[in-house]
Amino acid sequence: MKNNKYHQHQEKFQLERVVFFNDAVFAIAITLLIIDIKVPEFHELEISDKQLLYKLSSLIPKFIGFIISFFVIGLYWLAHHRMFKYVTSVNQKLLWANLLFLLPIIIMPFSTSFLSEFYFSNLKLPFAVYTINICLSGVFSFRLWKIISDPKNKVSEPIDKVIIKYNTTRALTIPIIFLLTFLFSFITFYYFIIPPLIPLTTKLITRHYFKKYPIEMNKHYNES
Amino acid sequence: MKNNKYHQHQEKFQLERVVFFNDAVFAIAITLLIIDIKVPEFHELEISDKQLLYKLSSLIPKFIGFIISFFVIGLYWLAHHRMFKYVTSVNQKLLWANLLFLLPIIIMPFSTSFLSEFYFSNLKLPFAVYTINICLSGVFSFRLWKIISDPKNKVSEPIDKVIIKYNTTRALTIPIIFLLTFLFSFITFYYFIIPPLIPLTTKLITRHYFKKYPIEMNKHYNES
Amino acid sequence: MKNNKYHQHQEKFQLERVVFFNDAVFAIAITLLIIDIKVPEFHELEISDKQLLYKLSSLIPKFIGFIISFFVIGLYWLAHHRMFKYVTSVNQKLLWANLLFLLPIIIMPFSTSFLSEFYFSNLKLPFAVYTINICLSGVFSFRLWKIISDPKNKVSEPIDKVIIKYNTTRALTIPIIFLLTFLFSFITFYYFIIPPLIPLTTKLITRHYFKKYPIEMNKHYNES
Amino acid sequence: MKNNKYHQHQEKFQLERVVFFNDAVFAIAITLLIIDIKVPEFHELEISDKQLLYKLSSLIPKFIGFIISFFVIGLYWLAHHRMFKYVTSVNQKLLWANLLFLLPIIIMPFSTSFLSEFYFSNLKLPFAVYTINICLSGVFSFRLWKIISDPKNKVSEPIDKVIIKYNTTRALTIPIIFLLTFLFSFITFYYFIIPPLIPLTTKLITRHYFKKYPIEMNKHYNES
Repeated sequence: MKNNKYHQHQEKFQLERVVFFNDAVFAIAITLLIIDIKVPEFHELEISDKQLLYKLSSLIPKFIGFIISFFVIGLYWLAHHRMFKYVTSVNQKLLWANLLFLLPIIIMPFSTSFLSEFYFSNLKLPFAVYTINICLSGVFSFRLWKIISDPKNKVSEPIDKVIIKYNTTRALTIPIIFLLTFLFSFITFYYFIIPPLIPLTTKLITRHYFKKYPIEMNKHYNES
Repeated sequence: MKNNKYHQHQEKFQLERVVFFNDAVFAIAITLLIIDIKVPEFHELEISDKQLLYKLSSLIPKFIGFIISFFVIGLYWLAHHRMFKYVTSVNQKLLWANLLFLLPIIIMPFSTSFLSEFYFSNLKLPFAVYTINICLSGVFSFRLWKIISDPKNKVSEPIDKVIIKYNTTRALTIPIIFLLTFLFSFITFYYFIIPPLIPLTTKLITRHYFKKYPIEMNKHYNES
Repeated sequence: MKNNKYHQHQEKFQLERVVFFNDAVFAIAITLLIIDIKVPEFHELEISDKQLLYKLSSLIPKFIGFIISFFVIGLYWLAHHRMFKYVTSVNQKLLWANLLFLLPIIIMPFSTSFLSEFYFSNLKLPFAVYTINICLSGVFSFRLWKIISDPKNKVSEPIDKVIIKYNTTRALTIPIIFLLTFLFSFITFYYFIIPPLIPLTTKLITRHYFKKYPIEMNKHYNES
Repeated sequence: MKNNKYHQHQEKFQLERVVFFNDAVFAIAITLLIIDIKVPEFHELEISDKQLLYKLSSLIPKFIGFIISFFVIGLYWLAHHRMFKYVTSVNQKLLWANLLFLLPIIIMPFSTSFLSEFYFSNLKLPFAVYTINICLSGVFSFRLWKIISDPKNKVSEPIDKVIIKYNTTRALTIPIIFLLTFLFSFITFYYFIIPPLIPLTTKLITRHYFKKYPIEMNKHYNES
């Protein structure tokens, strides 16, 4: 009975629902980032463009936070997209792991707002909260990949060991870099240059894997 | 005419729309939970991490409410996912039952906010409102399952009686536990340990069914 | 070239995008209705359940507005669901008509909020704005159906004349009833009983059509 | 292995996710436009319809901004719909280009709010910010189309040169018109009549292409 066409369709549809529910949550979280940035209000009757520009410039930390979180959420969505291409069916374990993965994503607009509010202060707490949020995303994304790639769970087609290791490394890159940034913030003022290193780091990792395992990596990337 | 491929596709597409509309509403409701948690504002010029931590700690009830509602909405989404795997087509009755099912889900961000606002007070009203909201979800989810599983409605493939009973029990678990929690809140201060019993209870119910009806339950869970 | 399988798939996918974009907008509009209902705030340190209940009761007009708009948006979604089952492909005309149809749906949270704010006043303006919003939805939904059902546009399979007339009537029911309610509000205080007549009216219309054209109507409703 | 049915399905599904994620972001951005328009509040006990209408009229600039942005976002969604009908698979380059394309769309509710707030002032800054936002959308949409249409990227079926040129022109129409409007705002007060020229301009471009290349354009539009 399990092999007939109807049940194959049902299985595919059950998987699609999980993925679309996940994508909808990501789409809402990434779009909600903007509603924290409020237009500056003026109570004076006459203002000049210069005064308005000055007031607008006070939103710069908010926009920096917005841009960082836009790319962090974007990167996690791309990671999910890369991981779920191997998934062939869902079970309770995978459903729960995916739900948990969404928890820190939903909290991102709050952490971003908290980080932006105190961006130019010397306070460590907002940055610590933001780092914890990203580490949680990393841990849950790591766990999701463990469940998907473990053949015992029977939720995916067989995955090459190289690809398992590659995606495990990728899942941990963002949290490790943010942890490092947080630690560096105690010893230097130039810590804010570290997060932009994320694309470079992932590029280096990917290049390293492509050099060492060209066949497996080409298959991984060409087939998506 | 009804048997040709075109109409089969149309029927499947009409069903998919209902499911995706449902999932989109769930995704928005679960993500909107966070926008009630506002970043603490400071009007003093100089603040320390300690002062900020103190202020942040005042958000703890909001985060407790957020986490509880995140899992309640998540559980109802999983229930919907479990129930709709049997649905093969939609009719007006099912469409309306599903729309009604969404009503208490949409109200969840309000009830959560109301509960969180008065979490550490001795007030019963916020907890009562939250419990009513969850009971409504339970009742509408129960009704949805009745409509799906009733062969007279012709919206599903034939469902095993064991599975009908199992999902009926599951649909009522969350509201019953929250009703009990509400009643316990009148006699003891330790009532707040009851909601975390939900995963344990559902696990026990599921284990009981797996022991008694291993064939039916394996089919129910493996095929999703 | 147009008849091969690849292009058939593309055409289906282009149609699916329009439908899912439409459904996502509906899902967001219906869920945003709740964020206007803010939890009552208390500045006193000690409050009783009774005082809180009194304050909560001031939200009743907001909840009435919420429930009405929930069902209005729900009804328009069901109408869209009923109309698009005939659509086989999209063209520019249909894309624009569908975009316009979304405009008053997106405005609904504003009109609802405006209506609720002045619900118990004698003011006519909020009710007028709400009625205009609903009439716009009716007009655009009517136009959408005209475009879908017109064989010249080649966006649908051939539709029975009875069904064309039935759905045209249905598209105009809600705006006509709200217009009547608005007019009645000038002569009687009991005008608020008219909107709940919508389900009755649509039921009567549907029954009438089922009696007169049982074959066509059965096909229309069974196949969705 | 790449040619079998399973991998074809996977590839299609990976593409569908990108498109639905994109559409969800568009749907949220277009619906969030309304939450900036707040219902006027009254602190007096007795108000007349006339007073309320006066207060409501102060929302006119907000509604103008809302309507303009509704159509701008709508036009970009239609552009995306027109471009992605040629896409057959996704690669990292396309995924990133699409993510970047979403950035200015997400910022639209902010720019709209900023524009509306100072609509009737003589300030140039809000209009400049709005124009920059639209130009960014134009540039990213242009880039997206370059990537899709370049056969080297292997993400699309072969596209006719006429269609490549047509869609390139279309991608640049909106930003050019808004840039012109911005420049005109320095020399005349009647600059606000320029944005409504967008539908006329695109119609003229489309007509021109239909006259010159009837076969290619018919295929482009009939097949979507």
